[in-house]
Amino acid sequence: MPAAKTVAVRQSLLEKNDRLAERNRGFFQAKRLLVLNMLSSPGSGKTTLLQKTAEALKGHLRLGAIVGDLATDNDAARLRAAGMPVVQITTGTVCHLEAEMVARAMTRLDLDALDILAIENVGNLVCPAAYDLGEHLRVVLLSVTEGEDKPLKYPPVFHSANVVIVTKGDLAEACSFDRAKTLANLHRVSHHATLFELSARATPSLKPW
Amino acid sequence: MPAAKTVAVRQSLLEKNDRLAERNRGFFQAKRLLVLNMLSSPGSGKTTLLQKTAEALKGHLRLGAIVGDLATDNDAARLRAAGMPVVQITTGTVCHLEAEMVARAMTRLDLDALDILAIENVGNLVCPAAYDLGEHLRVVLLSVTEGEDKPLKYPPVFHSANVVIVTKGDLAEACSFDRAKTLANLHRVSHHATLFELSARATPSLKPW
Repeated sequence: MPAAKTVAVRQSLLEKNDRLAERNRGFFQAKRLLVLNMLSSPGSGKTTLLQKTAEALKGHLRLGAIVGDLATDNDAARLRAAGMPVVQITTGTVCHLEAEMVARAMTRLDLDALDILAIENVGNLVCPAAYDLGEHLRVVLLSVTEGEDKPLKYPPVFHSANVVIVTKGDLAEACSFDRAKTLANLHRVSHHATLFELSARATPSLKPW
Repeated sequence: MPAAKTVAVRQSLLEKNDRLAERNRGFFQAKRLLVLNMLSSPGSGKTTLLQKTAEALKGHLRLGAIVGDLATDNDAARLRAAGMPVVQITTGTVCHLEAEMVARAMTRLDLDALDILAIENVGNLVCPAAYDLGEHLRVVLLSVTEGEDKPLKYPPVFHSANVVIVTKGDLAEACSFDRAKTLANLHRVSHHATLFELSARATPSLKPW
């Protein structure tokens, strides 16, 4: 297949996704829901962050989740155990969530009983960046163990982030994490993002950077 | 675009890739080169493993590399500093390497001066799994910090692995790594793989599991 045709197919798929994402956004607004799209590498701590957030918000704000994974419902089970209403999307070999998948999944949640809907995307720093889901905030996690160069190596996802959270602060010393270099690299790429650093395991704390 | 048409386009792209991959494999065989396709999440230690391997093999076997990244030539620079001939492929927004990219990149290496060619794929546990590059061995890295459930959550890449290396053993205790559970999960998915565990940072050592 010639390259030009491949690009045209991809454009048309992304344009269709963008229209459906706007429809989702309108629906979420009408429901007065804050919607977060959470992106990161595999194992950066998306599920743990959501678990701890649900516990911290208990009695104040009602948090629900849509969780995307190639296989298993491990993450959905962990979040349900934390008391959250959760819908699992199993993508098979698809490397990202799309607006249409979210639109279908949200019919299985009682959105009127929620204040915040977190969409935990497939663990992948590349493909999910291209797909708007209709979220209000795109939250990108980067764990200290992944190395300080990741914002430069994966610019689309870090550039499009509204929030970047550097996770696993409790491992920073053990892996010789270079905090200053990471911050400098984030400033070069994440122009629209508010930055935080976090240790959800040691003592749950979220510090603005 | 209807789902059936999307699937047909994807099939046709993968079939084209598979044919070019076989051509690469034939070429590599004729050149008597051992070719490795190295896959993992971002920051699991592919580059560090190659650096240390090049140092250990110095004077015995000649190692070269093709390195894929969305942006930057950081990894290529690190490998060149370790004395390896390296060609960088900058993929832009493309989330994986394809056989055609490798065929073009290898014209820029003196393959007759090499015994082993390592192809460091884009850091991504999903999409690169679908693209044969013509390699002899597919080597998948999983760092102890990513969590023991990853083989179950990303089955295509772990199922297709000839070798799985569990990296960053020096961080195992700090992140409460569950060794037995990881091994059990790998045995459920990585049916064709030889398993090793590694700490490239502490004392370079590779232990069969």
